[in-house]
Amino acid sequence: MASTNGMLDPDDSVILLIDHQSGLFNTVRDLPIPDLRNYVTAIAKTATLLNIPVITTASVPDGPNGPLIPEVHQYAPHAVYVPRTGQINAWDNPPFVQAIEKTGRKTLIIAGTLTSVCMTFPAVSAVQAGYKVYCVVDASGNWSKLATDTSIARVTQAGAIPTDTFAIVAELMRTWNRPEGSRFAEILADHVCPEYKCLIESYGKAQAVVKDGPETKLDKYK
Amino acid sequence: MASTNGMLDPDDSVILLIDHQSGLFNTVRDLPIPDLRNYVTAIAKTATLLNIPVITTASVPDGPNGPLIPEVHQYAPHAVYVPRTGQINAWDNPPFVQAIEKTGRKTLIIAGTLTSVCMTFPAVSAVQAGYKVYCVVDASGNWSKLATDTSIARVTQAGAIPTDTFAIVAELMRTWNRPEGSRFAEILADHVCPEYKCLIESYGKAQAVVKDGPETKLDKYK
Amino acid sequence: MASTNGMLDPDDSVILLIDHQSGLFNTVRDLPIPDLRNYVTAIAKTATLLNIPVITTASVPDGPNGPLIPEVHQYAPHAVYVPRTGQINAWDNPPFVQAIEKTGRKTLIIAGTLTSVCMTFPAVSAVQAGYKVYCVVDASGNWSKLATDTSIARVTQAGAIPTDTFAIVAELMRTWNRPEGSRFAEILADHVCPEYKCLIESYGKAQAVVKDGPETKLDKYK
Amino acid sequence: MASTNGMLDPDDSVILLIDHQSGLFNTVRDLPIPDLRNYVTAIAKTATLLNIPVITTASVPDGPNGPLIPEVHQYAPHAVYVPRTGQINAWDNPPFVQAIEKTGRKTLIIAGTLTSVCMTFPAVSAVQAGYKVYCVVDASGNWSKLATDTSIARVTQAGAIPTDTFAIVAELMRTWNRPEGSRFAEILADHVCPEYKCLIESYGKAQAVVKDGPETKLDKYK
Amino acid sequence: MASTNGMLDPDDSVILLIDHQSGLFNTVRDLPIPDLRNYVTAIAKTATLLNIPVITTASVPDGPNGPLIPEVHQYAPHAVYVPRTGQINAWDNPPFVQAIEKTGRKTLIIAGTLTSVCMTFPAVSAVQAGYKVYCVVDASGNWSKLATDTSIARVTQAGAIPTDTFAIVAELMRTWNRPEGSRFAEILADHVCPEYKCLIESYGKAQAVVKDGPETKLDKYK
Amino acid sequence: MASTNGMLDPDDSVILLIDHQSGLFNTVRDLPIPDLRNYVTAIAKTATLLNIPVITTASVPDGPNGPLIPEVHQYAPHAVYVPRTGQINAWDNPPFVQAIEKTGRKTLIIAGTLTSVCMTFPAVSAVQAGYKVYCVVDASGNWSKLATDTSIARVTQAGAIPTDTFAIVAELMRTWNRPEGSRFAEILADHVCPEYKCLIESYGKAQAVVKDGPETKLDKYK
Amino acid sequence: MASTNGMLDPDDSVILLIDHQSGLFNTVRDLPIPDLRNYVTAIAKTATLLNIPVITTASVPDGPNGPLIPEVHQYAPHAVYVPRTGQINAWDNPPFVQAIEKTGRKTLIIAGTLTSVCMTFPAVSAVQAGYKVYCVVDASGNWSKLATDTSIARVTQAGAIPTDTFAIVAELMRTWNRPEGSRFAEILADHVCPEYKCLIESYGKAQAVVKDGPETKLDKYK
Amino acid sequence: MASTNGMLDPDDSVILLIDHQSGLFNTVRDLPIPDLRNYVTAIAKTATLLNIPVITTASVPDGPNGPLIPEVHQYAPHAVYVPRTGQINAWDNPPFVQAIEKTGRKTLIIAGTLTSVCMTFPAVSAVQAGYKVYCVVDASGNWSKLATDTSIARVTQAGAIPTDTFAIVAELMRTWNRPEGSRFAEILADHVCPEYKCLIESYGKAQAVVKDGPETKLDKYK
Repeated sequence: MASTNGMLDPDDSVILLIDHQSGLFNTVRDLPIPDLRNYVTAIAKTATLLNIPVITTASVPDGPNGPLIPEVHQYAPHAVYVPRTGQINAWDNPPFVQAIEKTGRKTLIIAGTLTSVCMTFPAVSAVQAGYKVYCVVDASGNWSKLATDTSIARVTQAGAIPTDTFAIVAELMRTWNRPEGSRFAEILADHVCPEYKCLIESYGKAQAVVKDGPETKLDKYK
Repeated sequence: MASTNGMLDPDDSVILLIDHQSGLFNTVRDLPIPDLRNYVTAIAKTATLLNIPVITTASVPDGPNGPLIPEVHQYAPHAVYVPRTGQINAWDNPPFVQAIEKTGRKTLIIAGTLTSVCMTFPAVSAVQAGYKVYCVVDASGNWSKLATDTSIARVTQAGAIPTDTFAIVAELMRTWNRPEGSRFAEILADHVCPEYKCLIESYGKAQAVVKDGPETKLDKYK
Repeated sequence: MASTNGMLDPDDSVILLIDHQSGLFNTVRDLPIPDLRNYVTAIAKTATLLNIPVITTASVPDGPNGPLIPEVHQYAPHAVYVPRTGQINAWDNPPFVQAIEKTGRKTLIIAGTLTSVCMTFPAVSAVQAGYKVYCVVDASGNWSKLATDTSIARVTQAGAIPTDTFAIVAELMRTWNRPEGSRFAEILADHVCPEYKCLIESYGKAQAVVKDGPETKLDKYK
Repeated sequence: MASTNGMLDPDDSVILLIDHQSGLFNTVRDLPIPDLRNYVTAIAKTATLLNIPVITTASVPDGPNGPLIPEVHQYAPHAVYVPRTGQINAWDNPPFVQAIEKTGRKTLIIAGTLTSVCMTFPAVSAVQAGYKVYCVVDASGNWSKLATDTSIARVTQAGAIPTDTFAIVAELMRTWNRPEGSRFAEILADHVCPEYKCLIESYGKAQAVVKDGPETKLDKYK
Repeated sequence: MASTNGMLDPDDSVILLIDHQSGLFNTVRDLPIPDLRNYVTAIAKTATLLNIPVITTASVPDGPNGPLIPEVHQYAPHAVYVPRTGQINAWDNPPFVQAIEKTGRKTLIIAGTLTSVCMTFPAVSAVQAGYKVYCVVDASGNWSKLATDTSIARVTQAGAIPTDTFAIVAELMRTWNRPEGSRFAEILADHVCPEYKCLIESYGKAQAVVKDGPETKLDKYK
Repeated sequence: MASTNGMLDPDDSVILLIDHQSGLFNTVRDLPIPDLRNYVTAIAKTATLLNIPVITTASVPDGPNGPLIPEVHQYAPHAVYVPRTGQINAWDNPPFVQAIEKTGRKTLIIAGTLTSVCMTFPAVSAVQAGYKVYCVVDASGNWSKLATDTSIARVTQAGAIPTDTFAIVAELMRTWNRPEGSRFAEILADHVCPEYKCLIESYGKAQAVVKDGPETKLDKYK
Repeated sequence: MASTNGMLDPDDSVILLIDHQSGLFNTVRDLPIPDLRNYVTAIAKTATLLNIPVITTASVPDGPNGPLIPEVHQYAPHAVYVPRTGQINAWDNPPFVQAIEKTGRKTLIIAGTLTSVCMTFPAVSAVQAGYKVYCVVDASGNWSKLATDTSIARVTQAGAIPTDTFAIVAELMRTWNRPEGSRFAEILADHVCPEYKCLIESYGKAQAVVKDGPETKLDKYK
Repeated sequence: MASTNGMLDPDDSVILLIDHQSGLFNTVRDLPIPDLRNYVTAIAKTATLLNIPVITTASVPDGPNGPLIPEVHQYAPHAVYVPRTGQINAWDNPPFVQAIEKTGRKTLIIAGTLTSVCMTFPAVSAVQAGYKVYCVVDASGNWSKLATDTSIARVTQAGAIPTDTFAIVAELMRTWNRPEGSRFAEILADHVCPEYKCLIESYGKAQAVVKDGPETKLDKYK
């Protein structure tokens, strides 16, 4: 652990994206839906960039819960989808746990809609099963803010580590000084922190003014 | 415990619905009253569906605290009402504890109005008495949001598990793949997550259009 | 007008319930969905109680907008449904305007989802066509609070009267001293102001204590 | 006017997109930046779809205000950019007013960052110059919510019509029963109302279940 | 009018306190109940201090609406109570209007619970009857914030003047330079602006330190 | 401990009211000032009713921090005031700790303005010194909500028990079935939960109607 | 008017800064105190930069209202202070009106603490006296947000123009293309829009990187 | 430890100010930017006043993250800047840890932008490395409030102590009774608690009235 300074080890990690379905998204009230879509996308792209295994699943997608949002497998084409046969806690589905065990990894990064159910239940089960567990609360989506408050308390009490999308991307990325550095900046700007996108645009313009001169004619300004 | 993957065992559970009284409801400020009524109703119906023992009690219902809301016993007709003789902490009332002990179960699911008093005090007492305790914070109702924040911290510190109505129904239900599956969907749609009711209606209409054809005539749309 | 003291005249009124559809409800963010369902129900029941004409319509109910919520026609069985052929502003649909004209009434009470479109557009059109118009903002439902702010300003500027569900029921009801008095109390308690339902329950209990004696035994309280 | 039922006439309209610049966006606090980007994009795409003239301008884009966000001209390639020479109120810049006059149209749809300056000042000037003016408040972006409140009051007082992005797209679109109907649905789902995107996805899935059968195996559910 | 600089004339004013009843107070959600009680008290005390006529009334106080809060007549013992026989709009009750007419005054200061009904209806009626009307929105109390927003828009549109408790006390008081000056300060500190009470206490202590010396011993502080 | 069911023992308790000063109150932003004054008053009155020792102190009351609010000693006349000589953490002041030790009690109930300083520091010190500590967060008052969030986390982590005013009064009171029962109801109604005061008033009126008959004449209501 | 395009004319303007006093600031709840201080400072500096007359006054500064904040005269050293003799509405004080008349200007820019009193009363009086009036709502400060809502409605109804600090500075400044251009940027960055200050700093750094090269060594980033 | 009563020991402390950069500040949404600037300034000034070592660092300041805000080194001129070569967790940069070790101190006070990354990661690493760690959450700044909630839970779970700016300054200051007492008051008034600045001004004025007499002439006030 010393080599990671207490941070997670990407090479020991598996990402579980659970029940990010269009119908369930319409019940999310603790964060805006497009933010949630973007955060899930950011994690999917990060997983692809770093070649981290992703396991997905859905809860009764034939009914009002709706289909998985297409972004999940679109941006993590290597993700493995494990169908369930009705279990609410994905950990109750043996093929799901087997898919995790097959990776041989012991650190789980979990996001699931609804937070207090689809993220929390597997997190509690996984901790009990001996895994190190990170809960990405804002890539989950919950039916009320109060339920999110209780979820953070519950998973923390159980020994799972609560975190957020920006932090988990940064913890996986670890350093800007890597060949994929600018790819991470794009992910964060496009999907996590839109203020950052504006900063990048302004940054480019400020430098263009030095290189190419101003476009605005102001004869009296000083 | 392994067989539940760290989740609660419905067969070991008792539900305590404490002091859900009309007068006290008029003092609740951390969630809307109709939500609170609905969440209590959802838990009562779930208990009935799964035949889980329910014990109710009220605090001085002859005074301004008002009567128990009728939904409690209406939707959990098997519930046992244990009168109190003034004790604020229901655990201080021996017949109340005896009613629990009589069930022989060791997992308690507690909701009570006000959260910081009627849910929290018995939760702390029950943990000390050796029970596994779940606190359903949003089926309780508190006089301030700040008091709810301190309550979550207090019961978590004491070793009780904080949860919410959707999560506790789901944890009791465990799987959609059971004969009562659609009954649970109704409970959630009617009493917990009204967005879900809309989704069910839209789902039915979308399928009706395939089966029966559209009702709207649009000759230029594409 | 003097006889109404500037209030609306129920005998001159028509209620327009526009596009209260399950899919659109899932896009409403300026008030909770169950509140919106209840407010629409309250208006439907009031219309039935007072025999006020109701005209309903839906926007492309075969698509994701979804079906009309069933409560509308369930609680206002006398309502006339006028299908549209794609027009967004219901006033652009001649049969809709003809249905209004057929009543011979000149005061319109409008609610529509989304507020800034389905309530606002017909309101502006109706004012221009010479009607006295009431806009029931919280029986409408909008996609953002900011859009509701601009809608209130826009319809007020146009000369329509902004109001809310409680106020419009009260303005139609006018006095408690009528045979249907208790029916109105039920509508308000069940669908508009849930705090009121608790008050009614507490009121009954307080009187029962006088009539039947207390149920709680307290020997030391004073 | 009768033919429009008091709504705007797309054939008489010009859209003014003023100072939607990356630096200024970082000062917006009355709505999330990605929402603002999306609303501006929605208006740009609508203008292109309906071939409505668009005039853009920027305030000192060489400095910290930053460049126009690229979406504006990307999605409205027919837009005419009119540079300014420092004027804060775009109406003070004669070429800007001339570009409007050149269209021969008298209805202006204005959005500008910051709302209380870049949208409000030209709106007041245009009303005084005899134009019919729509202010799209949430496609503007302001430095405080309180400033947005005063802006709505100010432009309404001046005689301009306050509106929002969804409403202005709908008012321009007027009916779903047109060849571009589904294009408008895409614009609203992708850029204005993300809940709608989920509904479309769920709608498709619900119909696929009827056509292709379910993918989930549930043997005990009923 | 010139002599008042557009402000109200206390000698032409009557204060109407309508339906400030305990049951209705339990339905108020747009401001805290103790604030509402205090604001009504402040107005009652101000009326007494300035000898301004006060007319009160209650809506079905025998039922769940509850009794008038005792503060109203306690602090305005000269107030005249006019019973109603069920009318919701107090203006529909002839004795109520007659009580106003009997004063011979033409400026009405109205507060009523609920704002959108009990304040708004009489305000609209009174404006139509030729009175100058002030609506004290925060001494009224409404069942939702959105309903308060529409109420402000409605009464303003009707020509009544929206105001708040602090402002109406100040407008009646007009100057600090009067024998009752300190009495007004007490009213504002005790009932309207509690921050002010702290300031008065700190002010007294700061002056006591000069006059009597400090009580705290600090030997190293500078 | 068994006899208290994990609740506090009033006979082992001391209440510490620290730095409730007028100037500091003007810096409180996490709850309204009059609420804070009332909560402190409620605790003072409860202490007096139960004869629980109270120790008070103030931080540099000669300066802008201002004097202790008069309610503290007014409602707890038996309270002992211990002056400090500049120490921020009251526990750093030996006479303060000695006053506690002199009571021979080991359970401390602490409230202090500002929460993150004047409540938190002594709480951490007292836990370390072996006391059982309750922190009454909403009878403290903090300069920001975020600081209150960190304070709850910090004292909980340290082993102190976070609670609120209503809960601590109830935990001290333990049962309604005691001679002082109605006195506690008054404290809660007058100072902690103003909704409760309305309920008591409505309760009395409802019973008066049974005993004395109605005052309102309604001939058609049913 | 044509020459200003409906905007205000700085050469016809007088700025009235009324009752910006330290004690009153401690009662302001509709915006943070440091923001209010900064907005007043921004207006004072703008007045000095443009040589616009400023008239100040204070309400009973010897009492708990406290002294004028020093920034007012520090940053507008040319401001004229007109003492009052107790009048709440500054317009009731003849020397105050005379000071305005002496300037010969007819456009008034008013800010005053509290908004609903000290800004609103003179605004109403000035409109009646024939002045064109701008109300800078966020440079005023009010005791509640609801009171600010009613104030915006009241002054708009009366014919005064509601605005905000950023807008009034921009309306006075009119163009960046003036010798004082960068001075205005400083005022806005330092006192009105702190996000802008960050942008200026980032802008400078972005250009320095082009001119001077990067300081960070990244050998793998791309 | 006894000598500090569980509080931190300034002589054992090092302050780490991490990544307080202009670009990153434009992404902060959990507190206003000027507050964040001020809190960092307060800590820098406190460090200087008490001669506590400060170590700073920045994350890729050549890019859109922007430069360190100048206040950091301006107000803590003794601070040591340690450049990074791309590492996100400052603890991953050996020279940064060496700079800490060089001080020989074992208590770390950490603030960093973004909270969930730049404060949290080093905090977790430092706890694991055996340090006592304080996290100053509101001197950090995060991209969302939800991310701040998870950060507080995460660092508390890890064993770091969550705190706020006012509390950390007070914990370092320990007593007012020291020569620098008034310097601390200035820091708190100017940078942390602006209400306090108003109190100081009012305090001075109140005493001046005693010493120098009143400036306002009120002949009728009493």
